[in-house]
Amino acid sequence: VANRPLLTLTTDFGLADPYVAAMKGAILQHCPAAEIVDISHQVPSHHIVSGAFVLANAAPYFPPNTVHVVVVDPGVGTDRAVLVAQFGDQLYVFPDNGIITFVKESQPLQNMVQITKFNLLGIENPSNTFQGRDIFAPLAGYIFSGKPISKLGSIPAQYTLLDLPHPQAEEGKMTGRVIHVDHFGNLITNITLDHIHECWKNPDAANLEISCQGRRVGPLQTTYSQAESNQPISLINSMGLVELAINQGRFCDAYDAGIDAEVSILQVSAAE
Amino acid sequence: VANRPLLTLTTDFGLADPYVAAMKGAILQHCPAAEIVDISHQVPSHHIVSGAFVLANAAPYFPPNTVHVVVVDPGVGTDRAVLVAQFGDQLYVFPDNGIITFVKESQPLQNMVQITKFNLLGIENPSNTFQGRDIFAPLAGYIFSGKPISKLGSIPAQYTLLDLPHPQAEEGKMTGRVIHVDHFGNLITNITLDHIHECWKNPDAANLEISCQGRRVGPLQTTYSQAESNQPISLINSMGLVELAINQGRFCDAYDAGIDAEVSILQVSAAE
Amino acid sequence: VANRPLLTLTTDFGLADPYVAAMKGAILQHCPAAEIVDISHQVPSHHIVSGAFVLANAAPYFPPNTVHVVVVDPGVGTDRAVLVAQFGDQLYVFPDNGIITFVKESQPLQNMVQITKFNLLGIENPSNTFQGRDIFAPLAGYIFSGKPISKLGSIPAQYTLLDLPHPQAEEGKMTGRVIHVDHFGNLITNITLDHIHECWKNPDAANLEISCQGRRVGPLQTTYSQAESNQPISLINSMGLVELAINQGRFCDAYDAGIDAEVSILQVSAAE
Repeated sequence: VANRPLLTLTTDFGLADPYVAAMKGAILQHCPAAEIVDISHQVPSHHIVSGAFVLANAAPYFPPNTVHVVVVDPGVGTDRAVLVAQFGDQLYVFPDNGIITFVKESQPLQNMVQITKFNLLGIENPSNTFQGRDIFAPLAGYIFSGKPISKLGSIPAQYTLLDLPHPQAEEGKMTGRVIHVDHFGNLITNITLDHIHECWKNPDAANLEISCQGRRVGPLQTTYSQAESNQPISLINSMGLVELAINQGRFCDAYDAGIDAEVSILQVSAAE
Repeated sequence: VANRPLLTLTTDFGLADPYVAAMKGAILQHCPAAEIVDISHQVPSHHIVSGAFVLANAAPYFPPNTVHVVVVDPGVGTDRAVLVAQFGDQLYVFPDNGIITFVKESQPLQNMVQITKFNLLGIENPSNTFQGRDIFAPLAGYIFSGKPISKLGSIPAQYTLLDLPHPQAEEGKMTGRVIHVDHFGNLITNITLDHIHECWKNPDAANLEISCQGRRVGPLQTTYSQAESNQPISLINSMGLVELAINQGRFCDAYDAGIDAEVSILQVSAAE
Repeated sequence: VANRPLLTLTTDFGLADPYVAAMKGAILQHCPAAEIVDISHQVPSHHIVSGAFVLANAAPYFPPNTVHVVVVDPGVGTDRAVLVAQFGDQLYVFPDNGIITFVKESQPLQNMVQITKFNLLGIENPSNTFQGRDIFAPLAGYIFSGKPISKLGSIPAQYTLLDLPHPQAEEGKMTGRVIHVDHFGNLITNITLDHIHECWKNPDAANLEISCQGRRVGPLQTTYSQAESNQPISLINSMGLVELAINQGRFCDAYDAGIDAEVSILQVSAAE
């Protein structure tokens, strides 16, 4: 079977309105063979950081040449740019508002075009309020047609990246922040395994003590079930980030903690 | 790539139960090549008006010959008719309960059949409670098989349309109603640009003052970001309807207004 | 059109996180031609009984040879087995935690393999916390490749089934339990038509009186609309189970009843 043109959607549109389907219909008008996969339509409204997180932790698992269309776009109708960029072996179509930040941290930028020649997309009277349907959908169709994207504009002088806090290390203590609360109530932090290795050479995970908002969680482990049922646990998750969970429970409720909560790591002596 | 048989689903089934998937499985049994796209499964339970709105604002964006299957059907198991109709260049399969009302307002009716010969669908013992799976799915399969739909029944003498309020204009003031609250908390009204042009010749949008439940919103503009962040705005939306929003906020909460709320437009003098 | 490899997903991942899409991306990496259909991602977190119910009432409606991948897996990272089994004419890929219980009650087991040779899947460093992406996805790809599943392991000595209560009949009264509350607020019980026939020969449905938690519902009927609007009704539903509903209302709220609520059936005299 020949590979189909594969496209994903990441939006804050929700699933109750006609918006997602209108966009899918428009994509299928421009490219009837397109295979459309939802990344998520439940990014919190206008929340660019959440959208950036969800995108970066799903998109790279798709096959090469997948086109990822992202419409978390509080600036729709302003003069914010529309960008098409290749990071790694995949293409991203997105508004220039920082939504690409986490993708850029893990995937090498290959090239980028700022779309200016919208007339080449054959768009008449695009809506100022629903550019997902009227601009991003035909843009995806143009990309799948195999025509060169470079004809649609030029390399931008710069593009927007979010200015996010990075974990801080001082006096043998690392402090990070919660960047995402997932469906299970698990807290996902901005602390990576690399950050830990930068702070402590050859750390023994069992000697790394995690706290959340000053309240003890315990040593760093490797899977949820190492905690008893309803007990807290910290581990390096499937995205390579420090995550706090309650085995079969909800950490966010048990610790009354959410986005931006402070999470710290302290090395305790092996003898302790 | 040859076009695949394209089918959409609009239901009030939600996504937590086995109902949507059982229906998709049944469709794929009858037509393995079918491409199934969700319009929405989050129409409020038994809410025909909402379903009609969502359907009409998504379906027309799909390619010609798409088959739209609609199962918002509080009358399942009664003798309400099952209809197949072509509006514009697309097909609709739906219970005769008014769900087609908004589609009919924007797309010309080409033909309609009331299904009576269910035996030709090869259905044995259909459920009286889940006709989406047992009747609508095989019906979609029959349509995709290319057999003539006219064999399944005859043209109905009449079909149901919802009796909905239309905007009223008197003494230079137009009054409409909110017909949908979207995921962003925006209020969508039943006032179209055509209604405005019928009321005022060559209106200057900047002189049209919008109010919601007697509380001022402001002049009619063109995109959300023309309001400051967290400020209200009114505009003609991507469906051609007057919409009230808060830029990056939730209008429905800020104005404590929802379905059926009164929205009025008054022309103010240019000198004001 | 040749049949495509058809795969369904049943998880408790929700739709807001990157998890479902990361898993779909990984499946498409291993099998680009796969057609992926969601059964549900809204199984309550870690709730094996609910997942088992949703799976069993959707999966059998899919075409033969569909591969159903189930990741409701509170034991991820433990030594619980990963199983591939054929029930009826379909394949199931699932953790050995009882999630297959309701499928097994309705579909004959054809064969089963416990996966032990994970190295044959070409997996390097699978995550201990996200085996849906790192083990189940490549396993589905292996199955679609047409290689024999028997090479991946051997027949397990036993597998897990849930120990669920069955309806009890004594002195002409049958007592069952609510096993699912659906999106409409309908209560679905563990009482089948077979159970009723075992208890009463040739029962007249009109003489079977249903109660929920001691409160009368009424005689067994056949479709929702046999009750007046907002009135309670009991019927044999599309899954062959006794279901309690309010016509166009929410039974669970009106009767303040949910999972595990007691539902009883009493035969009343025809003269009553």
